Amino acid sequence: MKLEPPRGLRDIEPKEFEKIEWLREKFMNTLDLFGFKKMEPSPIENLETLEAKSGPSIVNEIYYFKDKSQRDLGLRFDLTVGISRYVSSRRDLELPIKIGSFSGVWRYDEPQYGRYRWFFQWDTEIFGRPCVRSDAEVIEFSKVYFDKVGLRQVNIEINDREVVEEYITKILGVKDEEGKSELLRMLDKTTKKTEGQIIDEYLKKGFSKEKVEKVLSVGKIVGEPTSVLSELERLGLKKTESLRSIVEELEAREISNFRINLGIVRGIDYYSGIVYEFYDEPLSKLAVAGGGRYDKLMQSFGRNDISATGVAGGVERLIMALERRNVSPSISQKRVFVAYTTERLKFKAQKITAKLRENDYPAETDLYSRDFRKQLAYALKHSRYLVIIAPEEDKKQKCILRDLQSGEEETVEYDKLLEKVIGFKH
Amino acid sequence: MKLEPPRGLRDIEPKEFEKIEWLREKFMNTLDLFGFKKMEPSPIENLETLEAKSGPSIVNEIYYFKDKSQRDLGLRFDLTVGISRYVSSRRDLELPIKIGSFSGVWRYDEPQYGRYRWFFQWDTEIFGRPCVRSDAEVIEFSKVYFDKVGLRQVNIEINDREVVEEYITKILGVKDEEGKSELLRMLDKTTKKTEGQIIDEYLKKGFSKEKVEKVLSVGKIVGEPTSVLSELERLGLKKTESLRSIVEELEAREISNFRINLGIVRGIDYYSGIVYEFYDEPLSKLAVAGGGRYDKLMQSFGRNDISATGVAGGVERLIMALERRNVSPSISQKRVFVAYTTERLKFKAQKITAKLRENDYPAETDLYSRDFRKQLAYALKHSRYLVIIAPEEDKKQKCILRDLQSGEEETVEYDKLLEKVIGFKH
Repeated sequence: MKLEPPRGLRDIEPKEFEKIEWLREKFMNTLDLFGFKKMEPSPIENLETLEAKSGPSIVNEIYYFKDKSQRDLGLRFDLTVGISRYVSSRRDLELPIKIGSFSGVWRYDEPQYGRYRWFFQWDTEIFGRPCVRSDAEVIEFSKVYFDKVGLRQVNIEINDREVVEEYITKILGVKDEEGKSELLRMLDKTTKKTEGQIIDEYLKKGFSKEKVEKVLSVGKIVGEPTSVLSELERLGLKKTESLRSIVEELEAREISNFRINLGIVRGIDYYSGIVYEFYDEPLSKLAVAGGGRYDKLMQSFGRNDISATGVAGGVERLIMALERRNVSPSISQKRVFVAYTTERLKFKAQKITAKLRENDYPAETDLYSRDFRKQLAYALKHSRYLVIIAPEEDKKQKCILRDLQSGEEETVEYDKLLEKVIGFKH
Repeated sequence: MKLEPPRGLRDIEPKEFEKIEWLREKFMNTLDLFGFKKMEPSPIENLETLEAKSGPSIVNEIYYFKDKSQRDLGLRFDLTVGISRYVSSRRDLELPIKIGSFSGVWRYDEPQYGRYRWFFQWDTEIFGRPCVRSDAEVIEFSKVYFDKVGLRQVNIEINDREVVEEYITKILGVKDEEGKSELLRMLDKTTKKTEGQIIDEYLKKGFSKEKVEKVLSVGKIVGEPTSVLSELERLGLKKTESLRSIVEELEAREISNFRINLGIVRGIDYYSGIVYEFYDEPLSKLAVAGGGRYDKLMQSFGRNDISATGVAGGVERLIMALERRNVSPSISQKRVFVAYTTERLKFKAQKITAKLRENDYPAETDLYSRDFRKQLAYALKHSRYLVIIAPEEDKKQKCILRDLQSGEEETVEYDKLLEKVIGFKH
């Protein structure tokens, strides 16, 4: 029998689990700091719900199946869709509602090195009025989260899709929705294709060379807010209010590591306003998180009355970023190993182990009555302190307590052991 | 568009999520106490892996589907199969290995009130030699876990399937595997059917009335270890060594709330030795956890060299048990709400909020510039402390700090606010 998980899938083994769990804990703490509620949307969705975000072609990119009643279902490919569907379904929620989630999602991509069909995301959303302060709140959240896990130099690239849309419709005169979307999406292709390739592609689609080049050059406007905003003014663009507000909001939060980047549009059509990405430059060109306002998704769930903004990041990608920076979770536990030198004393060792655990102190003893040397080898690998139960000392109701780091040891009465060990703190 | 999850599924909404999360945290802490490693096996398994535990009929009880390469897959229905498959696949693991997991599983049952097709389990397994101390370790684990979450009166019912098997083969003379399994499984039916129904059913299967009645009466042997063990001796049964050991082991751990119950066999064929269930009696007849030794599953994964024992419990069922006992998670956070009385001061409020969060103190401010009364109403509902930024005080670089519980308030300099609030502790 094959003992591996199906192709493209994996077990989260203890070493990786520890990292994910550490990031999960920090994420949950950050949600608490900001007053976010926590939830997990259903892992299985109706296919039509998944299509609401990404169109009918999504079926090719997900785990799709029929249940025994022939319903079309799919495994969730992100957390945003489920959270938004949930909020849309509940007309009794007090707004604004701030919700975060940290969980696994599935995509049926061709597996590549280090990429799996099941991976983890963190996701933070605010539902309510269309106000820029909510965008600033999730950006602040992300910054604090990255700080907490030790990724302290993240750059934020911010844009307002409406500004690029204004350029396309007002300056270039492209009024049809389809043409506007095509030109917007073009800006997402610049990381994967050369300008020449993009121009060829769009000429074939019937766009003029001039228009394509102009959009590409607008996509290159990147920099400090003041200079970008005056450049936009020079171009005759008026819809810069949101960008001005987000700058003010971030400055009020003393966040300074951001730029405006007109090239950030975040392909998917449902984004409607401020969008942004977080980069751990110069070490990687891959975004560690991204987000924006997505009122159009809420509209497809029948909620024209709720605006939504949120940010999401890949957990495995965050682990990679941390490893590039040599940041590792500081999980140190002062474990105790309780060794016994003769079989007869195993129950005494067991009793002391149980007592330590009962008092919230991590402790282990040998399950197999292995010889003392083997017990010691295990303890040296996994524990910080060693308790030795041996006949001589036991007769006097005592045991040996050794600090495995310093090598110091002392003989301690059983009665005093607990107090002594707990004094070490975790 | 339908905004609910597919039939039988649900979103874990914030209120339920908080409870599950609290139980998850306590579980993870208990794993640390006992030196268990943590993992999560793949949520999607090859169908043949799932069949290894429960036979080919399992396909009717799970989410089964083919992927785009026509592989037969299924969503995991428990955590034991995946963990065991993982351990079986890795010949480099240092034994014994102790592994715990807390996660969602799926079953395609007909949905009932309060039961869903996606639910959570906790699961703790030890792999290594077939020694009773490992069984005792997972039983101790469960007891400590239940204590930690506040379920302090759980009774443990323990059996050794080998003893019942010895009775069936040696005393009743049933030697064929099939007949032995059938008679063992019978003991699991006593909670759902009357004795009359069971006898009828087994007469039709070709068993003699005498044999059926004798097995049923052995299944009723329940009580203190000493009396049960002498009853077994009286019946001429010899394979009582494991039961004697587990009693000694539990006593060494000062666990006393257990009985031997020959009626506990845990239906599934793969159990091979000590089995046990945990009951929150007298409030419920449903087990809150159960487990046992399952070497036969390891054998089906080709590992005759590793013995396995473990315990698992349903998380939703544990929540129900806690609610029957009126135990609720004690999640109290001393949140601060930073209110502002005029729009002009919103950035000041935002800055103070950011500063508090940066210093790990949960804080919120209003995102919408709502009037002070609305801000106050929110604060009274969600926060413990209120900071008021108002023009008069602001001029003097001060703000008002109110304890919303006692109603006391004072005027504090901005410079001193952080220190003051942090002094409150979380």
